[in-house]
Amino acid sequence: MQLMQSDMQSIPRALTQIRVVLVEPSHPGNIGGAARALKTMGMGRLVVVNPGRFPDPQAQWRAAGAQDVLDATRVCASVAEAIADCHLVVGTSTRSRRIPWPVGSAQQIAAQVLSQAEARDDAQIAILFGRETSGLSNDELQQCHAHLQIPASPEYPSLNLAMAVQVVCYELYKCATTDTGSEAATFVQGPESGDWDRPAATAQQLEAFYAHLEHVLVDGGFLDPQNPGQTLTRLRRLFTRARPDETEIQILRGVLSQLGGAMPSTSSDR
Amino acid sequence: MQLMQSDMQSIPRALTQIRVVLVEPSHPGNIGGAARALKTMGMGRLVVVNPGRFPDPQAQWRAAGAQDVLDATRVCASVAEAIADCHLVVGTSTRSRRIPWPVGSAQQIAAQVLSQAEARDDAQIAILFGRETSGLSNDELQQCHAHLQIPASPEYPSLNLAMAVQVVCYELYKCATTDTGSEAATFVQGPESGDWDRPAATAQQLEAFYAHLEHVLVDGGFLDPQNPGQTLTRLRRLFTRARPDETEIQILRGVLSQLGGAMPSTSSDR
Repeated sequence: MQLMQSDMQSIPRALTQIRVVLVEPSHPGNIGGAARALKTMGMGRLVVVNPGRFPDPQAQWRAAGAQDVLDATRVCASVAEAIADCHLVVGTSTRSRRIPWPVGSAQQIAAQVLSQAEARDDAQIAILFGRETSGLSNDELQQCHAHLQIPASPEYPSLNLAMAVQVVCYELYKCATTDTGSEAATFVQGPESGDWDRPAATAQQLEAFYAHLEHVLVDGGFLDPQNPGQTLTRLRRLFTRARPDETEIQILRGVLSQLGGAMPSTSSDR
Repeated sequence: MQLMQSDMQSIPRALTQIRVVLVEPSHPGNIGGAARALKTMGMGRLVVVNPGRFPDPQAQWRAAGAQDVLDATRVCASVAEAIADCHLVVGTSTRSRRIPWPVGSAQQIAAQVLSQAEARDDAQIAILFGRETSGLSNDELQQCHAHLQIPASPEYPSLNLAMAVQVVCYELYKCATTDTGSEAATFVQGPESGDWDRPAATAQQLEAFYAHLEHVLVDGGFLDPQNPGQTLTRLRRLFTRARPDETEIQILRGVLSQLGGAMPSTSSDR
């Protein structure tokens, strides 16, 4: 069915900076449905992490007129690979986490994502969607700067995966093409804002820092690797919330090296 | 995937007054997908007019946990029969009609539909969705009080039928369960929000932490007190931005004590 309304002649550039990442989708139909959902909302960057079956005729059938988006879909072996170069990572999630995390509705997060994409045209943003049955793991959710929740009935909040992608992309498109949605987004308080002096650290840089931090804490006897508790999660949440820039990460790693010894070089480091 | 957020305990009554009418859907999967979409948004009244194949296993499969909605789906022989008792009828539509008709975006129409349902609890409202390929006919559109358009990319505005149902039901649910929908753009991102698990650190606790941090950095040779540069300022900015809570400050100070030695007691500490 054809349903359209747009006051813009062309597709807003900011939408091209946003990728949708499907983490371990089991049904290829959902990959095709997601590709179509993206294209209807002016988006084109789909990434799948460890898909159950892909490519697959069912994905092609559900993609309908979005074969180009489907053909360009990137397949990654891990979430880390999918988001390595991203400055902002958002994960779709249910309501209750044991440790509260920055959270917003689809509409609120869309406004913030758009304002950050509009502020810096080199900003790379990922929105993660979890498995059909079990969503995103705690570990995956903790790699996100913020969690996105789709308002839904408490009696049956279980949206189909491609439907959830459609709703989120719809909010993004609506926000990108209307004046009202984005103006409210005022959490300019870090490298996401246009006038910050350094670029935001990428997901890869952040992960290397967290690995270094953990190494130093274990090495210094602060953290028992057999029984880590919530300490590392809480530290991760704190730093993720602050959206560190590249220089800040350099300083923090300098502090860690000075106080706790250098990090043994690993593949996640660079 | 489970995605939920609702501040309401029960489903708003107004949503029970709204039926979704699929006019001559050809794919049974779309009927099942629509049933699921309704249920995730607290709605339960689905009507199909002259379906291509229904009931059908494909409809059941796509309905997932919304079998009850699917089982209760009413089959009608005509649009007139489907909407006979309705006080308000809305049709989803493309942009250009030869004769201009009252028209609104999904969000605008949702607000109007809800306000009418809330005003009279005997009001019956139908939202019509057309055929997968050709939408609603001119004759059907002229039976509607208003036309609803989903904002979409001008390059490919062709939403899947069940996806369009999902987006419209989502706008209805959002409108029914939030006061204004947009006003709430208060991205919860730290202890300033009501549902954080720990209170924000006080200014005094923060200053004691910064003093401890500086002490450790100077003591460890990372910082030259004669020539500190911007390092401490940048670290202060980073932590302040994160709005640490009490527990996070305790952890950070524990790390400093473990790695850099305890802070000599000062008046700013407690």
